[in-house]
Amino acid sequence: MRIQDLPTPALLVDAADLEHNLATMAEALPGPRLRPHVKAHKCTALAKRQASLGHRGFTCATIREMEGMAAAGLGEDLLLANEVLDARRLGRIDARVTLAVDSPETIDAAVAGGVREVLIDVNVGLPRCGCAPENAGALADRARQAGLEVRGVMGYEGHLMIVPDREKQAEGVREAMAMLSLAHADVGGEVVSAGGTGSYDSNRVATEIQAGSYALMDTAYAALGLPFRCALQLEATVISVSEAFAVADCGLKALGMDHGNPEIVGGGSVWFCSDEHVTFAPETPVGVGDRIRLLPAHVDPTAAYHERMHLVAGEDVLESWPIDMRGW
Amino acid sequence: MRIQDLPTPALLVDAADLEHNLATMAEALPGPRLRPHVKAHKCTALAKRQASLGHRGFTCATIREMEGMAAAGLGEDLLLANEVLDARRLGRIDARVTLAVDSPETIDAAVAGGVREVLIDVNVGLPRCGCAPENAGALADRARQAGLEVRGVMGYEGHLMIVPDREKQAEGVREAMAMLSLAHADVGGEVVSAGGTGSYDSNRVATEIQAGSYALMDTAYAALGLPFRCALQLEATVISVSEAFAVADCGLKALGMDHGNPEIVGGGSVWFCSDEHVTFAPETPVGVGDRIRLLPAHVDPTAAYHERMHLVAGEDVLESWPIDMRGW
Repeated sequence: MRIQDLPTPALLVDAADLEHNLATMAEALPGPRLRPHVKAHKCTALAKRQASLGHRGFTCATIREMEGMAAAGLGEDLLLANEVLDARRLGRIDARVTLAVDSPETIDAAVAGGVREVLIDVNVGLPRCGCAPENAGALADRARQAGLEVRGVMGYEGHLMIVPDREKQAEGVREAMAMLSLAHADVGGEVVSAGGTGSYDSNRVATEIQAGSYALMDTAYAALGLPFRCALQLEATVISVSEAFAVADCGLKALGMDHGNPEIVGGGSVWFCSDEHVTFAPETPVGVGDRIRLLPAHVDPTAAYHERMHLVAGEDVLESWPIDMRGW
Repeated sequence: MRIQDLPTPALLVDAADLEHNLATMAEALPGPRLRPHVKAHKCTALAKRQASLGHRGFTCATIREMEGMAAAGLGEDLLLANEVLDARRLGRIDARVTLAVDSPETIDAAVAGGVREVLIDVNVGLPRCGCAPENAGALADRARQAGLEVRGVMGYEGHLMIVPDREKQAEGVREAMAMLSLAHADVGGEVVSAGGTGSYDSNRVATEIQAGSYALMDTAYAALGLPFRCALQLEATVISVSEAFAVADCGLKALGMDHGNPEIVGGGSVWFCSDEHVTFAPETPVGVGDRIRLLPAHVDPTAAYHERMHLVAGEDVLESWPIDMRGW
């Protein structure tokens, strides 16, 4: 099949760029040094490519992702790097399941749900989940007393992922990981899980990096100058042309918008997006029926809108991959 | 089932508020005076409620919505208020199908796809689709020469939907509809289709109003002081609590973010949303495991993220409705 034959909007993944990204990361963080985060793509077919490069443990953000990875035969070592209050579905998954906990309540939920292994989630500066570093040891004690295996700690320095000055970023990562190390000293265990695409090369403390965006990338991460390419593009059709602007058939329901407007491949400026449209000023004239491509600003909420992504080479569609871990 | 038993995040629709909204609109714009836009909810079960109140014609934004409405037995008079370059799927739908066209190319696509009826889409000030008013007559001639039935015109004054000063808004709507009337004089036909929730009471020119948001509403529309209630809420679980903030399990993949952050029912301020989390400062203390509810800022891209919405009364779940017209 040719890209031209796909109905639009259609999510495209450039096969060569994807392979470049996966290979580059696997060289920097081989095998268990990387625990790829599937939240960025929610696609078991893509996760299988990551596994084929030697990464056997994965990170998930939702129970649905955990279930999907297990069902796809990728359940060797799954970490739910998030807190849940109802872990019963996790206890039924046929896979090695490790769950983040950061409070007595989430420890109790892990036990009640039949989860056996946990990480103590530590707040290292991002105002989100995680206990205070000084409380990690007591939580680990409590978890062990409740019969849970505590594998170690995790602490996501998410507030530092997209810092343009990479030296300042690295300094922030060192400070955040110093907090995680303190907690780890109290907690014990072999695992120190942290990091992301923005700190894959500066986080020297984590035993495993939870990067996800590196595989497909987006314009927000591209601004950092990392060695990963924007493999994900949105194909759209020009459906209307006026003197000053043109309109293509992709909009708010095809693009995560929290990081702003998409960029148009080959130039042109986006005026605004509405539900099913992008209005833009093309750099060179376009006609009704022409195809254009856009680079999303944020990969995760973009992928979550789509049923599938199409692996492409040139103008050919090589494979169509269901985005099969959407929802909760 | 009780709301407490739903996994979170879960999209709730208050049954009383929904009925209020549907009844209020049906009184203002009875029967064919309203052509409800299904893009706001993408849910055939909700569309059936709208049909039961006497609205037999519907507006769609995508081919998938047209197919879904026809499959649900709601195909008496479906308008695709959008341009398409490949209308073949439309030609195969077992329903009365009317398609917006605004160029020779989209007229050709309608003919090639087997579509029989069209509206001439006119730009009335929103920089998006639609021909210039002075070109509408010539396009109608061309469409008729190509064998299409031209039912009339449409022109969406979307740039005026959310104008806080309702007098200014009404003035803008009058100006926009004057442009549409000029085009209609050249085009002929019985249909003048326009308007939306924001202009349902000020648009006196359209023979039918394409409102969609009124059924479920959102905080952006709520700011206008219309007589419609926010029926749509997102139920989430508090999964982590710190001194200054708390975290609930709904985020960017459960909320359309282009109109900004959601509001928390009962007070509190949202700090930020990330993929699967909202970090907020609660107004009154919350505990891990508590449920909270949020009002989305933009209903359309919020509904498009969810597999289903749950009709609720008090703490009871009355019905669960698939959001069955997602995608394209």
